[in-house]
Amino acid sequence: MINRKKATLPRYNQGEALSPWREHINDVIFGFHTPMGRAFDVILIVSIIISVLAIMLDSVEAIRLEYGDWLFGVEWFFTILFTLEYFLRLICVRKPWLYAKSFFGLVDLLSIIPTYLTLILPGAKYMLVIRILRVLRLFRVLKLAEYLGEANVLMRALSNSRHKIMVFLYTVTTLVVVFGSLLYVVEGEGSGFTSIPKSVYWAIVTLTTVGYGDIAPVSPLGQFIAATIMVLGYGIIAVPTGIYSAELVRAYTGGDKAIGEPCMTCGETGHDKDALFCKHCGGSLEAEED
Amino acid sequence: MINRKKATLPRYNQGEALSPWREHINDVIFGFHTPMGRAFDVILIVSIIISVLAIMLDSVEAIRLEYGDWLFGVEWFFTILFTLEYFLRLICVRKPWLYAKSFFGLVDLLSIIPTYLTLILPGAKYMLVIRILRVLRLFRVLKLAEYLGEANVLMRALSNSRHKIMVFLYTVTTLVVVFGSLLYVVEGEGSGFTSIPKSVYWAIVTLTTVGYGDIAPVSPLGQFIAATIMVLGYGIIAVPTGIYSAELVRAYTGGDKAIGEPCMTCGETGHDKDALFCKHCGGSLEAEED
Amino acid sequence: MINRKKATLPRYNQGEALSPWREHINDVIFGFHTPMGRAFDVILIVSIIISVLAIMLDSVEAIRLEYGDWLFGVEWFFTILFTLEYFLRLICVRKPWLYAKSFFGLVDLLSIIPTYLTLILPGAKYMLVIRILRVLRLFRVLKLAEYLGEANVLMRALSNSRHKIMVFLYTVTTLVVVFGSLLYVVEGEGSGFTSIPKSVYWAIVTLTTVGYGDIAPVSPLGQFIAATIMVLGYGIIAVPTGIYSAELVRAYTGGDKAIGEPCMTCGETGHDKDALFCKHCGGSLEAEED
Amino acid sequence: MINRKKATLPRYNQGEALSPWREHINDVIFGFHTPMGRAFDVILIVSIIISVLAIMLDSVEAIRLEYGDWLFGVEWFFTILFTLEYFLRLICVRKPWLYAKSFFGLVDLLSIIPTYLTLILPGAKYMLVIRILRVLRLFRVLKLAEYLGEANVLMRALSNSRHKIMVFLYTVTTLVVVFGSLLYVVEGEGSGFTSIPKSVYWAIVTLTTVGYGDIAPVSPLGQFIAATIMVLGYGIIAVPTGIYSAELVRAYTGGDKAIGEPCMTCGETGHDKDALFCKHCGGSLEAEED
Repeated sequence: MINRKKATLPRYNQGEALSPWREHINDVIFGFHTPMGRAFDVILIVSIIISVLAIMLDSVEAIRLEYGDWLFGVEWFFTILFTLEYFLRLICVRKPWLYAKSFFGLVDLLSIIPTYLTLILPGAKYMLVIRILRVLRLFRVLKLAEYLGEANVLMRALSNSRHKIMVFLYTVTTLVVVFGSLLYVVEGEGSGFTSIPKSVYWAIVTLTTVGYGDIAPVSPLGQFIAATIMVLGYGIIAVPTGIYSAELVRAYTGGDKAIGEPCMTCGETGHDKDALFCKHCGGSLEAEED
Repeated sequence: MINRKKATLPRYNQGEALSPWREHINDVIFGFHTPMGRAFDVILIVSIIISVLAIMLDSVEAIRLEYGDWLFGVEWFFTILFTLEYFLRLICVRKPWLYAKSFFGLVDLLSIIPTYLTLILPGAKYMLVIRILRVLRLFRVLKLAEYLGEANVLMRALSNSRHKIMVFLYTVTTLVVVFGSLLYVVEGEGSGFTSIPKSVYWAIVTLTTVGYGDIAPVSPLGQFIAATIMVLGYGIIAVPTGIYSAELVRAYTGGDKAIGEPCMTCGETGHDKDALFCKHCGGSLEAEED
Repeated sequence: MINRKKATLPRYNQGEALSPWREHINDVIFGFHTPMGRAFDVILIVSIIISVLAIMLDSVEAIRLEYGDWLFGVEWFFTILFTLEYFLRLICVRKPWLYAKSFFGLVDLLSIIPTYLTLILPGAKYMLVIRILRVLRLFRVLKLAEYLGEANVLMRALSNSRHKIMVFLYTVTTLVVVFGSLLYVVEGEGSGFTSIPKSVYWAIVTLTTVGYGDIAPVSPLGQFIAATIMVLGYGIIAVPTGIYSAELVRAYTGGDKAIGEPCMTCGETGHDKDALFCKHCGGSLEAEED
Repeated sequence: MINRKKATLPRYNQGEALSPWREHINDVIFGFHTPMGRAFDVILIVSIIISVLAIMLDSVEAIRLEYGDWLFGVEWFFTILFTLEYFLRLICVRKPWLYAKSFFGLVDLLSIIPTYLTLILPGAKYMLVIRILRVLRLFRVLKLAEYLGEANVLMRALSNSRHKIMVFLYTVTTLVVVFGSLLYVVEGEGSGFTSIPKSVYWAIVTLTTVGYGDIAPVSPLGQFIAATIMVLGYGIIAVPTGIYSAELVRAYTGGDKAIGEPCMTCGETGHDKDALFCKHCGGSLEAEED
């Protein structure tokens, strides 16, 4: 009953029809149901990957010295390509200003601006991080038909459990502050616990089981407390995992079916979302709507 | 049927009505259903965060040397604020003595006492850890409406699985003692395994997959045994995760049926949601409703 | 229908009645349903913990030098106590030889033998590991009523998924052999990958996310392959966790109820294990058995 | 309804009957339902393990110097054995060319070729990695009856969730690129972040909670960002775990309904187990059985 294609259109692309050629470009650039739209997405993804790899290689001293000119060329080629694409998007979208302010609109802009800025500004290194943000454009790949539903399930489960995850992060924060301060007092400056923020950093490294080993307790008492926080960290990983698993299990097994409409004939609920007829009495589930 | 607001009141705040102005202060300080009560909670949380950050920054040598006076001022400002709040709580609560002995009552007291003690006692460093415990006051945030239910689900699932978690911790303890002692004998003092407690510490670092690397086996046999404990640690993380996931799945999918109505005939609970007859005595579960 | 107490008796304690005083000692030592049996278990657990702690402390050079005599006394006190207990067990058990050969029988023996052997043999260090195996005796604690059922659920889920876990371990073994050999060739001896076994050890350290850092790739290609094995290790932890979670969810939600008997009256299945009456028609589920 | 034995036959072994003696060898080598077929598999597995262990030991300098001749003999013994086996497989299989091009056909070939090549070529070290790939032949063990079904369940769950896992890997890739570049700018070359690829490597080491510690941030800001990526990595492990758990739970509890009988009227599948009427067309699902 819901027009799926329409429903997934971003807000900045909803509205009345455009002139035929703008509608066509819109379909190619923003759409993903036509062969050309899909081809555009694939080319875009390949371009982004090459361009991001070029930025990464450019940061390797040895490679820049040898192939610097090539990489410079690649960078400008893709920057100009992305600039053209950005203007095409602005031209053919229904609400250009809404698009420009949207998350992807900003990422699209941020992925071209820094290259132009390097012409007038020094400090290329800081521009580099902004330029590499164009990797975020890759998330457009999720528009590809095969990922669309999957990403939605994952995001909805995440969104459903956001309060529980906040409670979890909250507890983790409290734990690392308390244990970090404890180790700061117990261990002292000799073994690297020079301040509470640094000790809290150590506590995070330990609780998350990363364990660099750049800071590590050496006194027996310090090691005993550290062992406690390790076992805690090892154990409470169960909490976010459990929350997310349970949420997905509910989504998979149709645990939220209870919300659905009851059968008009026998009144039974618990029907699958795609059910047209009651599984208990065979009565139509949609009789009243026609 | 259960008065939710009453039910969540702590024991020290249950009882007969207070005089109007005490009732009002009580509502603001302990309550979270009125706009003012909510505002109070938000201000309190912000105060606690600033005050904890100040303590953390105060422990950084460079910052203390430069901004020590400011931080001293911040500390006393919040200490006096929290002291006033503590007395207000004592005045307006229904059973002051019960509150003072409760977990949050003690945390509230411990978060102000150390600052006063530094006036008469040296050894500020040890006071610092106690002062930072005021971070625990942050858990009052869980009283905010949006977290209340979520935290309860998480805690009840944890509480339901506490025996299973004890069995798991028990097994982990045995494993680290046995493997730690084994490595102590196999590796010897050369590679840092200087005593059994230290070797057990190493075993915990390894089993929990933290892996500092400050102590690590060097002999082939030692590395073989270490590899075994690593794979064990990698695998048995599945146990607490599985326990907690299963408990949450049960809570989500309504497998945790204790919430349901008891049988009118025999009083037993635990019936399936679609049950029409009591599975214990065969009496109809719906007789009274018609 | 099954006599629970009998069912949990180990095989070496099943059989005909003993003389009254042996039956009584048997109840205290092996039983856990009488107050004295429970008290005995608690005392035993405390004794084992003290004795294991004494062995651990004895291995710390500084402590042995100062309190060596005390620890020597503690060790002999508990060894004699455990010896007496061992003989009491042999005397009052129904099938002494079966008990002596059982897992716990051997652990009980191994926890006293080494102390006597140190009288005639040097090499105390190797005895120490055997002595510390008495920590395994702690598993008797699982006989305590509150852990009995919990440990069974966990063990049965583990046992149900043992084939899947073997398949998982199998895959992990293959992965670490292949990746370890790859890194051996790519990295070479310079960065610590001196032989394939050592490289496989590194691969285990990395795949299990322990990450000591004592051996780590330094070449770009080595780091790229290492990154692959890290992401693999990070991801496939999902496999044992998923297996065990699903097994526990099935145990919790009664997913194995389908095996149960159908109702004699209406033929419906899916009844809870503790159901006496059909939840669909109210008919008795046990009618035929009486 | 489906002939299980036939169904699990690989494509290169399906077809018309062979001459009796080839059919017999085929049954022994490729089959696993006859005692001899099973014995062959067990001998093969033992041979592979010994041969792989020999390659591994051969790479240890000290062992090669002492037992090099023995290991040389073992290698050639098993190479000739595996060569014979390979030709037997080619002779008795129904479609030799399809087998030779199959995954296991290539692994079988690759596990014997390198040993012969060492006769004419130097550079034994690179051959070694190819030779050790014969460890992959071990996966034939999964043909053993007790693992067959289990591996299938695990693989199908993996296959069902492949799109979700791609979305997850996608997000992880983006995260490590963005955070790696950030640390490259913030930390600089002093602390080991010499290029973006190296920083991305560090980000992977950290996000997967491996944490070697060979590269670690030292500036306060760098440590703050690192702490963020650690908590992220600690938390999002919940995503693949949740996906796989939910998929297995569905497989276990029969939520994966594709196995069920299709509707006789409209042919649609996916009905609940207790459904009496097709939820798509309302036709009775049990009409044909009476």
